[in-house]
Amino acid sequence: MSLSIKDDEIDIVIGALRPDLTSFMNEWRTIFSRFHLIIVKDPDLKEELKIPEGFNLDVYKKPDIDRVVGTSTSTIFSGYSCRYFGYLVSRKKYIISVDDDCYPAKDNKGILVDAVAQHITNLTTPATPFFFNTLYDPFTEGADFVRGYPFSLRSGVQCALSCGLWLNLADYDAPTQALKPEERNSRYVDAVLTVPARTLMPISGINIAFNREVIGPALLPSLRLGGEGKFRWETMEDIWSGMCVKVVCDHLGLGVKTGMPYVWRNDRGDAIASLRKEWEGVKLMEEVVPFFQSVRLSREATTTEDCVAEVANVVKEQLGSKDPMFARAAKAMLDWVKLWKSVGSST
Amino acid sequence: MSLSIKDDEIDIVIGALRPDLTSFMNEWRTIFSRFHLIIVKDPDLKEELKIPEGFNLDVYKKPDIDRVVGTSTSTIFSGYSCRYFGYLVSRKKYIISVDDDCYPAKDNKGILVDAVAQHITNLTTPATPFFFNTLYDPFTEGADFVRGYPFSLRSGVQCALSCGLWLNLADYDAPTQALKPEERNSRYVDAVLTVPARTLMPISGINIAFNREVIGPALLPSLRLGGEGKFRWETMEDIWSGMCVKVVCDHLGLGVKTGMPYVWRNDRGDAIASLRKEWEGVKLMEEVVPFFQSVRLSREATTTEDCVAEVANVVKEQLGSKDPMFARAAKAMLDWVKLWKSVGSST
Repeated sequence: MSLSIKDDEIDIVIGALRPDLTSFMNEWRTIFSRFHLIIVKDPDLKEELKIPEGFNLDVYKKPDIDRVVGTSTSTIFSGYSCRYFGYLVSRKKYIISVDDDCYPAKDNKGILVDAVAQHITNLTTPATPFFFNTLYDPFTEGADFVRGYPFSLRSGVQCALSCGLWLNLADYDAPTQALKPEERNSRYVDAVLTVPARTLMPISGINIAFNREVIGPALLPSLRLGGEGKFRWETMEDIWSGMCVKVVCDHLGLGVKTGMPYVWRNDRGDAIASLRKEWEGVKLMEEVVPFFQSVRLSREATTTEDCVAEVANVVKEQLGSKDPMFARAAKAMLDWVKLWKSVGSST
Repeated sequence: MSLSIKDDEIDIVIGALRPDLTSFMNEWRTIFSRFHLIIVKDPDLKEELKIPEGFNLDVYKKPDIDRVVGTSTSTIFSGYSCRYFGYLVSRKKYIISVDDDCYPAKDNKGILVDAVAQHITNLTTPATPFFFNTLYDPFTEGADFVRGYPFSLRSGVQCALSCGLWLNLADYDAPTQALKPEERNSRYVDAVLTVPARTLMPISGINIAFNREVIGPALLPSLRLGGEGKFRWETMEDIWSGMCVKVVCDHLGLGVKTGMPYVWRNDRGDAIASLRKEWEGVKLMEEVVPFFQSVRLSREATTTEDCVAEVANVVKEQLGSKDPMFARAAKAMLDWVKLWKSVGSST
């Protein structure tokens, strides 16, 4: 891990959707125990949390959330979105967030992956969004820029977001998961790459890290599907937030990386049952992708908060009339910016 | 390899810059012997070629080139550019081209990589340039599109170009090679990905494959550096041609993939000696990248030949006055389109 980063510059944020975190925490113990943890309990979860001893952590439950943001706002933090409360109350420079059904992965050589170290390396080395390097991350040891890469672009830009990947249960949507219930991802791809500027991608919230001081307000709970449930394949909040954060990064000249580190996702849930719920995610992306591809922010938008507010206004204008879900998302985004300014530590 | 592709739809084109191809051909024998080979001898090379028995091949030498294109044009095929003569005279659908100092690589498990099979798989499965799939090529076995990937984009587009990579001696430029003479690439990244639309990259000619019927005329010898020599790090012809082909693919809605297959590049040449030649490649890319990023082709350009001619005209207009090298490149591109129409099998 980058020597210049101190352990106390990092918060690990865990959204607890299940009451018993014992095996999750114990599996991560060697990696997480040096760091401060923020555990946010899904406000819909009734049972008491079970958390093993030996960690430096703060736990936030529904009453804490209500106290900080008020009871009317606290509903935005239900389900997978509970982690965003952790992003809001953190005061650290870097946040790392992993779903509570993920365990540490092993690399191609069978060595345990230190996901924290890899995320921090991704965030503290430059990103190169303006030209693609065919040998992947030029800042990895043993790598460099290939012949033809312009020297003026080799210093790169600041990396704001690091998106990790998943072994075993891949992050498929409900229909794919239902169609291929036996499919598991066993391909460990030993690479990190910068997602090029103006290229959009489905950013998953399962295993991510970001520079909170730089891009924090753009990771936000705003889009909620009608029949959204408690399984990842039923949600789109992170995908929507990810489209927003990528557009903001592109506008502000910040980088987004994807690839390592991997986490090992365990199986849970019944995808076919999810499919019966008439999942709205499929239709959604047909509108959302062309929309975000067309969004251009103004020169006046110089902070992440400005950018999010501008995106929200364009969402309201262009998508708001198509589906009340979009109008609600736009309002939630504007509310979030206000919340971040009052409760969070604004940039 | 894709079952629908017959061996006789493929030409393997080798530019011979060294007279003795014995070890090169023998190393590739198990992979190449099923296919027809086109060997083009660098017209500057004086010694006789040494080629082992047992291959189905045609060899083209300076007199053959002169006869087909005329003595005044044949100079464009000197050095690494000799392979383009092979592209011109091929009548096959797919071309695979590998530098004569590359040997078959082994994968992470020590298994010999069949570069031809991987290239053909890349070319015959769709590319996905309009949205980035975080789990890389969704058409690889065991992979799929991740949650959030729009269903309307999942059928993808035709893949026109497959860019392979290099183990051992990576494809660095003269300064990098001279600064890090000991650096070797040992990272085998088990992935293929589509380079997003409108993202430019330095396409290397060391290890590539393409659909000649679709994109053939865009792979062309046109840019020649002043002090260009007989080592890869001294050349930029492929990088220039690659910028052109990517712009054309983006315009025509075709895909470009990068990643596997790898080849093993052997060491040769003295990078520090190359550096003394005052390599023009560094300065060059500072002009060339922003230029190609800004090029937009007209709706009237519906064939690859049209597109190349349009690019050539913009090169002449916008770069021609900056350096006579660019003016010459523009002319060479226009000449190439004419040559392709008369000698090659035009689309």
